[in-house]
Parts: sequence; structure tokens; C-alpha cells
Amino acid sequence: MRQVVDLHHASRLVNHGPTVLVTTAHGGRRNVMAAAWSMPVEFTPPRIAVVVDKKTFTRELLAASGGFALCLPVPAQADLTFRVGSESGRELDKFARHAIAAAPGPVLGLPWIDGCCAWLELRHLPERHVEDAYDTVYGEVVAAAADARIFAHGRWSFRDDNAALHTLHHLGGGAFAVPSRVVQGRL
Amino acid sequence: MRQVVDLHHASRLVNHGPTVLVTTAHGGRRNVMAAAWSMPVEFTPPRIAVVVDKKTFTRELLAASGGFALCLPVPAQADLTFRVGSESGRELDKFARHAIAAAPGPVLGLPWIDGCCAWLELRHLPERHVEDAYDTVYGEVVAAAADARIFAHGRWSFRDDNAALHTLHHLGGGAFAVPSRVVQGRL
Repeated sequence: MRQVVDLHHASRLVNHGPTVLVTTAHGGRRNVMAAAWSMPVEFTPPRIAVVVDKKTFTRELLAASGGFALCLPVPAQADLTFRVGSESGRELDKFARHAIAAAPGPVLGLPWIDGCCAWLELRHLPERHVEDAYDTVYGEVVAAAADARIFAHGRWSFRDDNAALHTLHHLGGGAFAVPSRVVQGRL
Repeated sequence: MRQVVDLHHASRLVNHGPTVLVTTAHGGRRNVMAAAWSMPVEFTPPRIAVVVDKKTFTRELLAASGGFALCLPVPAQADLTFRVGSESGRELDKFARHAIAAAPGPVLGLPWIDGCCAWLELRHLPERHVEDAYDTVYGEVVAAAADARIFAHGRWSFRDDNAALHTLHHLGGGAFAVPSRVVQGRL
């Protein structure tokens, strides 16, 4: 059910603050970590900031390759998300350890993890000062896709019948809030 | 039910990606806008990044005063959140227009809006380059509080009986997802 998302809708995928899985690959190595802290910074061009600690293997791989991917996990992946956020991939391949299936993204070939509800590939926009001072990494989206059962025509649709595809929002300690209802504001 | 939140727990308040109301005041003027795009960047010291367009009155006031506040709206404030995110405060006082009641925050005296579920005051950390390039504004939390019915001992607790205090997560077009259930990841 993976469907291409137009780039001018790509920032919408993380507009509501979901926890993401950050994947990277370079020189035959690959990695995945969880990041609760990300946000769009621009719709057009679609740009996103994500906090990735400077000591992580992910930072090393993304700097070397010039890109990273974001995958949005669903409730059935809560354990996986907590686990890959609690260990380093420097010494072990977390994809192998956790039997994570992934397909290469369409532009950068970075791992897009099966079973997620949305996926993005981003080109790294190097910003040395804030990467150093605030661990903030910027990227520009070059490819995006989503499961059409939950995101279509540029919009999320959180309903009871697609609850298995709802996003995760980390509260701390492996507890994730799930956005299961929607309220519509009026002007 | 407003209770002080320890500063080392302050980043948790926005860990799960809620939409926030950004308030500012300077020289007898005040303003409020909605921001869907924010994230913690550090737990200790508690630091948060928020995207505020450089053309907004909020940017002008926060640069002049050196601080800003974040208030987390609840479902009954969805209309208000959509409205203050859709108009400029340069020509009108949005507090007066929308009859928004607020009390001064404890450290900077910035407006903390009544009826929200959590509140923060932040000192602006000027970062001219990313403010210009990505509209990203950094701040360090100097005071935090939350409604103890939904956030206590450093943790959110989203339950059916406190649904009126759940956070809003903007999906676009004034539609907000509300985190109504919680899944617990296991290591």
C-alpha cells in the first residue's frame, strides 16, 4: 500500500510530531536509531530538522554518505522502536539483530523499513554550528511515500479502522502516545 | 491544578510533538501564535527549538525581549489555536480579540494562557544563521508547569478521564490529532 507522496506534502508527514526511525548507510555499513525529536522547518522546499546525538554511529554514517532516511513506526513496532533507540549500531548490525526487513529508498537507496506507515529520504544540509551546539541535523526531502490507507492526497486520516497504522509519539521510557482521535478547529 | 515541573523534566512536555501557542511581550505589546513545529534539543539544560517565521510579529517581540513562552492547548482550544495561527498580531491584540485570559509566567512574566495543560518560559538563545536560514529559534527553559491531572512526576498520563486535557497535534488545515491511547514498548 506504499504510495508516493508529492514533495510539497512531505513535511506534513512529520507535522504532528511522530517519533521516527532514522536510517543511514555508507560503505557497506547501515544503521537505524529512534528519534523522538524532529520537526519540519519548511514546506517548500520540504526541509526537516532532527536531533541526533553527535556521538552516535548514525551521525558518522549520515555525514559520510550525505543523506538519511526517516521511517514512521506504527504501534506493532513500539518494542522495536524502543530497542533501536536504546543500543548502538557501531558494534552490531541492528537490522540483522532485530530481523528488520527494509527496501532501498528510490533516490538515495537508504533503508525504508517494512511495516512503517510513512517514509522519507533526505539529503543532509550540513550546518556545523548547530550540529555541534544542539545536535540538530537538517535535511531536505528528496523522496517521500506513505501507506495510502492512512495518508493520501496530502492528508493524514486517523480512524478506528486503520488504528494499526497510527503514528507513535514518545512520552519517555518506551511509552508512546498514539493519536487516535481528531478534532477540527474552525476559524 | 497548575503545578511546577522540575526543569530536568521540562523537555518531556514537548517530547511527543504537541502543537504549542507561542506567547511574547515587549514594551506594552503582546502576542500569541500557534506553532506546530517545535522539538526539544536537550534535556539538561532543557532546550527547545521552535520554527517561527521571520516575518511574524512574534519574532520581533521575542528578539526585543529576549524570551518567549510556550503553552500547550487542549481540545477545547482547537478553534482558538487555529485562529491565532491564521492571523497576525501586529495590527491587533489577539488576547483582546479572542478574550484570552492569561497570567504572567513566574520568571519572565510572559503570558501563560489559562486552560492550557502545560506552560514553559524560555530565554532566547540567539542563533542568527539558522534563524535566518530555517526560521529555527532556540530557547532554554527557565520555568515550566503543567496541569497535575495530566502530567505529574515528570510523566504524561493520557487517560479517558482526563481527555479534556490531552494535547493537540496539528495535521494541517486546522485538524488536530489527539493522543488518546498509549502503547508501552518493551526492551
